[in-house]
Amino acid sequence: MSTVVVAESNWAAIARDGAVTLLARCAAVAECTDKPGEILRTFISPAMEEVHQRIRPWFEVAGMTVNVDRAGNLRAVYPSDSGEYAARLLIGSHLDTVPNAGAYDGVLGVLMGLALVDALGGRRLPYCIEVIGFSDEEGTRFGAPFIGSRALVNRLNDALLGTRDAKGITVGEALRAFRESHPEAIDAALTAQTSGYLEFHIEQGPVLESRNCALGTVEALAGQSRFNLVFRGCAGHAGTTPMDLRRDALAAAAEWMGRTEAIARGYAGLVATVGQIAAEPGGVNVIPGVVRCSLDVRHADDAVRKDAARAILGEARMVAERRGLSVEAEEYHSQPAVHFDPEMISIAEIAAERAGYAAIRMTSGAGHDAMVMAQHLPSTMIFLRSPGGVSHHPDESVLEADVAAAIHTGLCFLDEYALLVKKKESDRSA
Amino acid sequence: MSTVVVAESNWAAIARDGAVTLLARCAAVAECTDKPGEILRTFISPAMEEVHQRIRPWFEVAGMTVNVDRAGNLRAVYPSDSGEYAARLLIGSHLDTVPNAGAYDGVLGVLMGLALVDALGGRRLPYCIEVIGFSDEEGTRFGAPFIGSRALVNRLNDALLGTRDAKGITVGEALRAFRESHPEAIDAALTAQTSGYLEFHIEQGPVLESRNCALGTVEALAGQSRFNLVFRGCAGHAGTTPMDLRRDALAAAAEWMGRTEAIARGYAGLVATVGQIAAEPGGVNVIPGVVRCSLDVRHADDAVRKDAARAILGEARMVAERRGLSVEAEEYHSQPAVHFDPEMISIAEIAAERAGYAAIRMTSGAGHDAMVMAQHLPSTMIFLRSPGGVSHHPDESVLEADVAAAIHTGLCFLDEYALLVKKKESDRSA
Repeated sequence: MSTVVVAESNWAAIARDGAVTLLARCAAVAECTDKPGEILRTFISPAMEEVHQRIRPWFEVAGMTVNVDRAGNLRAVYPSDSGEYAARLLIGSHLDTVPNAGAYDGVLGVLMGLALVDALGGRRLPYCIEVIGFSDEEGTRFGAPFIGSRALVNRLNDALLGTRDAKGITVGEALRAFRESHPEAIDAALTAQTSGYLEFHIEQGPVLESRNCALGTVEALAGQSRFNLVFRGCAGHAGTTPMDLRRDALAAAAEWMGRTEAIARGYAGLVATVGQIAAEPGGVNVIPGVVRCSLDVRHADDAVRKDAARAILGEARMVAERRGLSVEAEEYHSQPAVHFDPEMISIAEIAAERAGYAAIRMTSGAGHDAMVMAQHLPSTMIFLRSPGGVSHHPDESVLEADVAAAIHTGLCFLDEYALLVKKKESDRSA
Repeated sequence: MSTVVVAESNWAAIARDGAVTLLARCAAVAECTDKPGEILRTFISPAMEEVHQRIRPWFEVAGMTVNVDRAGNLRAVYPSDSGEYAARLLIGSHLDTVPNAGAYDGVLGVLMGLALVDALGGRRLPYCIEVIGFSDEEGTRFGAPFIGSRALVNRLNDALLGTRDAKGITVGEALRAFRESHPEAIDAALTAQTSGYLEFHIEQGPVLESRNCALGTVEALAGQSRFNLVFRGCAGHAGTTPMDLRRDALAAAAEWMGRTEAIARGYAGLVATVGQIAAEPGGVNVIPGVVRCSLDVRHADDAVRKDAARAILGEARMVAERRGLSVEAEEYHSQPAVHFDPEMISIAEIAAERAGYAAIRMTSGAGHDAMVMAQHLPSTMIFLRSPGGVSHHPDESVLEADVAAAIHTGLCFLDEYALLVKKKESDRSA
């Protein structure tokens, strides 16, 4: 069944070698930073340009044609066995980082695309592979994420283009400056033959480690609701106000947080987090009169998320009422879940199985470039175990064996994807 | 039985008139401030000097000899019917304030002493009355409270004298400057014949209002323990970390706060307050890894307070352990309870009853000058209802009828105290 010429029995060994190279490359990319002493790369910054210069030859040696596009994304194309108008599988992730980042978030997914082309050893498939290094996913510079992927699908709207960075420069101005200094940049929009999107990414969470799995296939990106809550009671003297005459806003918030945790545990796959809290007036000897806190609720099923959020906010009202307080809750952010393409998920699953790995199906609670791409292309993601669940931190890591598992799985994915492309072509011609 | 000449039937009317005068005087004192737009008077500040100038004539008209002492306290003596070596009842409170204060905290107790002397209408008792306006109770300027009362009982130790204000001036330096500009100031130490201390004060809490009582007789000042707690779990991504893999420091602190509240309700008269809380790193989308919070525990019985604090901290350890977190608790302040003199409490109670008020016995959760005085003199306090329990705030208030109740009760107290003084004199001569 395989369309790849090299015997499948060698893929594990190829993947092991590829993992060593990939980790060395991640380390080389990590040297490119906008802030000495930590890893920081923002949208089309000098460090991002340096990354492009450093990694471009690696793609060229693998037989790929490399360009930057007019949104600052790196685009490397590996031709198909049948000319440039064949189907095109996009494999990628982002090259920008959060402040004080680790070496793998984003970068690993870009270099995984390269590692797979490397592993092909020059052999061609019945579709092109385009590896993409997105210029901005984290939103570190402008606060607005996904600039790179939104450019591919024509979603750089006026609101985004008018967003300013800390120096007052808008996204639009930054893009114009980039285009002036890069007249060779190609159009960012997806080419019509692009047929699918695959993204490898570190999990950035503890699930795979806790399940003792190297890999996970991602079915969906959870939807999110974010709220600000304000509990208002009555400040009072900590010494002179008996317990039964208090309207303590922090005691109310504490009771509600306990209920929130219990409700979240009652829905499989739901997460609810209170990450910010402030008590006013904030004196050691003063009963808090006002508590402000945040609430973040996520689930892959929007109906479940909304139901849980309703229950959690209802509990806030009940706790407040019982204690003679008031509570206000404002939803300031709501983002629907994104479900990946069942066929792509299935291919990823079959590929992992063929490579000998029991990849578990999972939901991502974090956002990724695949969220934007999935609205336009059949997409999926493959997660690699994050030791300790650590990410967005210098301690972020990945196991070499897990990278080998990902490369091996990726090779199988390419093979399975070839079958899909051929099937679709024959369906079309039938 | 009464030693006061005016018929007791007139005392209620005298008290009603006195209440009107007292409230007008509180308003006049409230005009003296170190910070325009709010009430603020600190230790021997210009506003405090202005208060002394403004109130001195009121005492003199009442037949009292007025001095400042070398600690900046105002001292006004009303002679006895039997010369200056008779017993001396000290009546007072403080003239300094917290920032953005109300008009009654402290001041009311000083002017209550004056109102009682006024009400005597020149008649003498078998003991002197000394009304004192302490220069510092709140500790607003130096962070260290009770400078005024500690000077009376020779407890201005080197540590206190070396304490600096925001400008770097020590208590010792401020006192020296005051003495140089007030060569007429008298020695602050208590005179040997001083036989008791009575302090009227607004309750600063909601108990009397909730019990529909004008007055309360204070049996004790609660002891206090203050702790800093740190819960340490593990920060994590709010989207990628399932509920059952979290070590959320804020969820743990919330559970503990609920337990703290329950434990506090289990001990009659105990109060426990978490007034400060901070979650780190404090991102909306980050599970808190560290929570720092305060704990304030108070009770009139030191053994009960310590037992409750032990139970509350034990609960913190249990909650942390069950959740895989650590917790540290540091006690940084511990102050034993102060119990007032049974005879003085009894006189206050009898006096309120004679005046026709059902004064309830209560504990003060806040500190007062009486705390220092009670360690050297038979002392007690009488609380006046605080509408809404509000204090340390511009909205602080007191009802005119309650002030009248306090003056009437005070007159009865003076009368009962005369009996006590005579009884002690006859015991001595027997």
